[in-house]
Amino acid sequence: MAPRIVEIRRGVLEKNDRIAHELRDRFHEADVFVVNLVSSPGTGKTALLEQTLERLINRGHPAAALVGDLATENDARRLARSGAPARQIVTDGMCHLEAYLVQNHLDDWGLDLEGLDFLFIENVGNLVCPSGYDLGEDLRAVLLSVTEGEDKPEKYPTMFHSSDVAVFTKIDLAEPVEFDRDRAYESLESVRPGITVFETSAKTGAGVDEWVDWLVGRREAQ
Amino acid sequence: MAPRIVEIRRGVLEKNDRIAHELRDRFHEADVFVVNLVSSPGTGKTALLEQTLERLINRGHPAAALVGDLATENDARRLARSGAPARQIVTDGMCHLEAYLVQNHLDDWGLDLEGLDFLFIENVGNLVCPSGYDLGEDLRAVLLSVTEGEDKPEKYPTMFHSSDVAVFTKIDLAEPVEFDRDRAYESLESVRPGITVFETSAKTGAGVDEWVDWLVGRREAQ
Repeated sequence: MAPRIVEIRRGVLEKNDRIAHELRDRFHEADVFVVNLVSSPGTGKTALLEQTLERLINRGHPAAALVGDLATENDARRLARSGAPARQIVTDGMCHLEAYLVQNHLDDWGLDLEGLDFLFIENVGNLVCPSGYDLGEDLRAVLLSVTEGEDKPEKYPTMFHSSDVAVFTKIDLAEPVEFDRDRAYESLESVRPGITVFETSAKTGAGVDEWVDWLVGRREAQ
Repeated sequence: MAPRIVEIRRGVLEKNDRIAHELRDRFHEADVFVVNLVSSPGTGKTALLEQTLERLINRGHPAAALVGDLATENDARRLARSGAPARQIVTDGMCHLEAYLVQNHLDDWGLDLEGLDFLFIENVGNLVCPSGYDLGEDLRAVLLSVTEGEDKPEKYPTMFHSSDVAVFTKIDLAEPVEFDRDRAYESLESVRPGITVFETSAKTGAGVDEWVDWLVGRREAQ
């Protein structure tokens, strides 16, 4: 990259970090635990989130979701079925969410953050670009479906390295796709040693309770 | 985006288009047909390419591959098993290939373009960012696995809109994932009416001969 581009990019990231810092303060004051979900397109962020929201609400933890996509409001519509407030951020072609988008949508939405225990931000499906953009979250969760191949952590190291927890999805398909569990953990460990891992299926519900228990525990520990 | 960023981005794209134009002239002079493969991470670009290269070579069509990844040389190693020359472009975190990277690697590689019928460029796994970067290809093929969900074309319209052909992959998993074929075609038609579609499985080999026949036909028609 030419020096001028590097300089501009640094400016964008500095501005993003400043707004993310403001958001983080705002979230902490409201005592809402914020999770940024990142993955490839089609890994199943929305499907896991539907089940997560439903379970949290059933256990008396109010939760809401902000969901980013280049186009369409499909995901917010799907998520609203869980009973949780859900709002779409249409990025009009931008390949990741930035903190100012989260801030603007929260301001417009008029969501009562104080009344929430959890806020989920579903990022644009992209294993590269969202990694550099802090959204003020408490936790970044990277999802990886068993159908995507075991070497994704090594091939997209920045995203896995910047995440706090990894969630395997579509574990019900492990057998038909001949998922090599040892190889996948080895790849994950090579870029993010010691990371907490969940194995889930939104279809069968496997592992989702464990994931939700863990989230509740993380919020309480904070 | 601020006006200064728009201006810089325009400069990057103009430079890319200029180099892509030079590459296209070079490819046409050498009479090599160039295919740019794009998809999400884990859709199976490398698996389809392995089978494509093998079949082309068996039919007497010399072919080679340039493969982009953020990190690792895994894919070039896999592709070399087909007997085709294969070279990795490690982008060091960049989320897409640009024409200058293709140009630099071709220059370093010393590949005999005149001796080839096909050159495949496997892009970085990303359904957003590669769409704006022409690599001098004759054909852009977008891959979409049946495990990713039927609505991807609508959610990532720019990539599908800029592609010349769509290839469904992992069609052997259509049943376990309850792939809704009609819904997928409907989504594709809504952003790219009339696009040619192949349904393939690198595992069972289904549809791969039809895809290779079509590529050979496209090259001959040119």
